[in-house]
Amino acid sequence: MAAPDAVGGGAHPLDAAIRLAPAGAGHRRLRGATSEAYWNSVGPFGGITAAVMLQAVMQQPDRIGPPLSLTVNFPAAVQAGGFDIVVRLLRGGRTTQHWALDLVQGDGDQPMASALVACGVRRPVWSDREARPPALPPPPPDFGPRPGAFPVWLRHYREHVVRGGLFGPAPDSESAAWVVDHPPRPLDYPALAAMCDAFFPRLFMRHAAPMPVATVSLNVYFHGDDAAMAAQGCQPLLTEARGQVYEGGFFDQEGRLWGEAGRLLATTHQVVWYRD
Amino acid sequence: MAAPDAVGGGAHPLDAAIRLAPAGAGHRRLRGATSEAYWNSVGPFGGITAAVMLQAVMQQPDRIGPPLSLTVNFPAAVQAGGFDIVVRLLRGGRTTQHWALDLVQGDGDQPMASALVACGVRRPVWSDREARPPALPPPPPDFGPRPGAFPVWLRHYREHVVRGGLFGPAPDSESAAWVVDHPPRPLDYPALAAMCDAFFPRLFMRHAAPMPVATVSLNVYFHGDDAAMAAQGCQPLLTEARGQVYEGGFFDQEGRLWGEAGRLLATTHQVVWYRD
Repeated sequence: MAAPDAVGGGAHPLDAAIRLAPAGAGHRRLRGATSEAYWNSVGPFGGITAAVMLQAVMQQPDRIGPPLSLTVNFPAAVQAGGFDIVVRLLRGGRTTQHWALDLVQGDGDQPMASALVACGVRRPVWSDREARPPALPPPPPDFGPRPGAFPVWLRHYREHVVRGGLFGPAPDSESAAWVVDHPPRPLDYPALAAMCDAFFPRLFMRHAAPMPVATVSLNVYFHGDDAAMAAQGCQPLLTEARGQVYEGGFFDQEGRLWGEAGRLLATTHQVVWYRD
Repeated sequence: MAAPDAVGGGAHPLDAAIRLAPAGAGHRRLRGATSEAYWNSVGPFGGITAAVMLQAVMQQPDRIGPPLSLTVNFPAAVQAGGFDIVVRLLRGGRTTQHWALDLVQGDGDQPMASALVACGVRRPVWSDREARPPALPPPPPDFGPRPGAFPVWLRHYREHVVRGGLFGPAPDSESAAWVVDHPPRPLDYPALAAMCDAFFPRLFMRHAAPMPVATVSLNVYFHGDDAAMAAQGCQPLLTEARGQVYEGGFFDQEGRLWGEAGRLLATTHQVVWYRD
């Protein structure tokens, strides 16, 4: 496994992990490398792959606004080392813009992850927030980190569980926890996308023993704009999650990430492969 | 606007709307046409576009199992008339398989819709259903249809609202309704995908006046297998939906579709553009 973090100097490990440089002319093909800091069991943490694919869109000079939605499908485990992200602008209107991306590795540009991203310009129209955050106490002044945690990526989040446990069997998979990047880093869209994959697998809460799991598809909807990111800064987010159906080797889980002043910053859903 | 339904003879309008024929050698480029029966205001009903893109995967000879997830992004309004769907197999494993698709029209194959689909082979492993259907009375023996409804696609669903109304302002956007294809048609995955976009826009329940709306991205997770589709047949599904955030010209809504014996068949989420 390469140690690309080493080139990061004093950079935050998340910034080092999502660093992309143009591979050729223009910005439609970008080059990055996997990060030891966000390594999972057989590949990178899926959240960091989601983050770097979103970052590829964030770096496009002709992007028209913040992200609205991100879907990442994971055909294969990303291999340690370098990768390219091939970016395609599907179409851009005045208020929404659609991008399609492949993360490729090896001879013949094998797709290891594929994503669709929509960006949008928010406008001063009638607005309303219907969703309300759960009534839970504020986070303790300090919690975490988990220096020796495994897989390694867990070491780069601090987490304080408020509701729900870890391994089951439990009667339901509902949980709530305060989560924040470690070391502290002001929130942005790639960090938020990564956090959407940081939930403990719901399967493990319903079933007594851990099983091999792998995300098939991850979906993120962004409800916050640049001002909401700036307001959040380095404060922890209140995260909620639950699963619905675990059947025949696939299960789903959905989550909500609440920010400062009870503002819903992201909703997320994923389908996960598992086996006995 | 073309009238491609005319070629369908006695076929169900949904089957006519998702009919695809190979355009060239093999099955990776398929040709279809829009349907008047599922026309919306400025383009086809988004659900029928989702259905035909899923159908393009269903027709692949090397598909390994039923669909697990479908994400469709809508860069532009599909124009009345013919279209091609270009299908790419990203990678197939033994239990999951990933596809990427573009629906294209016009010179230079302009992408009007783009999709990611994951398929999976369900296996005999530990399984559990955590989500429970709402406690609501069974559907009346007969309800609907809406012969003169507008937009036209509404005429091809029967709907019986159980909870929640239509135009607001209401204190929340939660609703429940029995929904089924009209005329009757045994449920399959494309029909289920279409139904995931058939919810009344949550924005209209919260705001007193209708506004122009357009789906940006639609996400569907399939929890039912072939046996669940067969068990459902032509019976109505109990559908639930709610919105969360309506802000700056974009809102989200999420839904659950329950089948026979309280079985969760699909969960769905979408981001929608709107303006005053």
